[in-house]
Amino acid sequence: MKKAVVIGLGLIGGSMALEWKKRLGYHIAGIDLNAQHIQKALELGIIDEETTYDQLWDAEIVLVAVPVNHISTVLLQVLDRIGEDTLVMDVGSVKGHICAAVAGHPRREHFVAAHPMAGTEHSGPEAALYDLFDGKVMALCEVGESHWKLLDRALSIAKALHMRVKMMSPADHDLHTAYVSHLSHVSSFMLGKTVLEIEKDESQIFDLASTGFASTVRLAKSDAQMWCPIFLENKVNVLKALNEYLKNLEHFKHLLETDQVQGIAEDIRQANYIRKILK
Amino acid sequence: MKKAVVIGLGLIGGSMALEWKKRLGYHIAGIDLNAQHIQKALELGIIDEETTYDQLWDAEIVLVAVPVNHISTVLLQVLDRIGEDTLVMDVGSVKGHICAAVAGHPRREHFVAAHPMAGTEHSGPEAALYDLFDGKVMALCEVGESHWKLLDRALSIAKALHMRVKMMSPADHDLHTAYVSHLSHVSSFMLGKTVLEIEKDESQIFDLASTGFASTVRLAKSDAQMWCPIFLENKVNVLKALNEYLKNLEHFKHLLETDQVQGIAEDIRQANYIRKILK
Repeated sequence: MKKAVVIGLGLIGGSMALEWKKRLGYHIAGIDLNAQHIQKALELGIIDEETTYDQLWDAEIVLVAVPVNHISTVLLQVLDRIGEDTLVMDVGSVKGHICAAVAGHPRREHFVAAHPMAGTEHSGPEAALYDLFDGKVMALCEVGESHWKLLDRALSIAKALHMRVKMMSPADHDLHTAYVSHLSHVSSFMLGKTVLEIEKDESQIFDLASTGFASTVRLAKSDAQMWCPIFLENKVNVLKALNEYLKNLEHFKHLLETDQVQGIAEDIRQANYIRKILK
Repeated sequence: MKKAVVIGLGLIGGSMALEWKKRLGYHIAGIDLNAQHIQKALELGIIDEETTYDQLWDAEIVLVAVPVNHISTVLLQVLDRIGEDTLVMDVGSVKGHICAAVAGHPRREHFVAAHPMAGTEHSGPEAALYDLFDGKVMALCEVGESHWKLLDRALSIAKALHMRVKMMSPADHDLHTAYVSHLSHVSSFMLGKTVLEIEKDESQIFDLASTGFASTVRLAKSDAQMWCPIFLENKVNVLKALNEYLKNLEHFKHLLETDQVQGIAEDIRQANYIRKILK
């Protein structure tokens, strides 16, 4: 039976394992520093067995789905131990540092740098879901550095999971995700914090929060263990995006302070263009 | 047949009209400055007929659902023309100015200041929905100023629509909604604007926007005609909330610039408390 090893059994690693079992018939072996995650993943049928770094040589795929600041270290350990035909993929939300870390490795061509752009605000093996990746984008970076045969295997997996593949450079990936994903999280975390600071009475928040607040603040439920490393790994781009956001908020504040209704309406109409892109 | 008049046939006015017809058996007469709105509301069965300000005297209820900056003017016209038994309600998202405007009116006790806390990012009569108010909060302000019999009618309506009533002062209402609703909109409008400014390639936004961005930016689809007046009418409170938000964002920026991972994690964990309030 074809064997796949998943390292890191959280939301993304766990969901990938579920899909690979169901759609591709893999036997899934898992590795996780957290013994409770292993236990839970076995109970939930996410993995078939626990394994170790010494047993990667006969795996067809090894997926590295640990927090983004640990991916490079784990990848280097993995590349040192794989077999001749093993494909290694990661799921990191920031790609620049990772691609740089493996650049000089003699087995670099076994690696396909990947970012499945999907998730929820929940984490851990219990958060793993079927169909999480359905219709979502799988970003692949530096595909020219991967062996064509292993790249082809990665593409087949994406296809089996009904994902749309988008190839781009690590630099482009990290800049765009800073704007389209990471900034949303900063904005939502700080919105949650701001409202919680002022609204000491929780029932007030609950009662007055019509669906608008709930959707805007949804990402504020996301896990610190996942998001701290992402912000730090993509620091330059996140700060760039955050500065643009702050500039726009300060400008809005100025417009409101000076009663510039036309300017506020113009800002809103610019933002409304998002209607045409996201239905 | 009991008659209700709805002035302003947008999302809220239109949805109220639908509910009142269905659940309370009212004959609905509509007023709207926009002839196309009247036409559409007739076509969609939201109203039964068009009416004018001269025919309010025999209405059991008059609902004022125009943009918030016009509510006071319309309310004063309405109060001058109603019958002995007419209940007048509004749906304004900001209550301070409105309550102040009607304070001296000889028929003040006919008025119940209301804010049904529900909505979507769409507008106009086409956006009107059944069940929009189901389980949502109806904020009522200055209830001591309303005649008990008419207040009772307003409460019956809220009950028939399965709304939870929350009574509060206009000042409290305007402060809390600034944090829990209006700030979310500012945050979302500016997020949409920021991302659109940098991402000139629309497919990039679409491709990279996993569900996270979509929910955070959803409110950025909201209408300028509705939101400009809300921001201006609630200017003091919105600026207060926006300043707190900016302070938190600037602090986060400082933490990130100086690699203070513990501080960032602490911020995120504070924001995570929202999990306990909004499931």
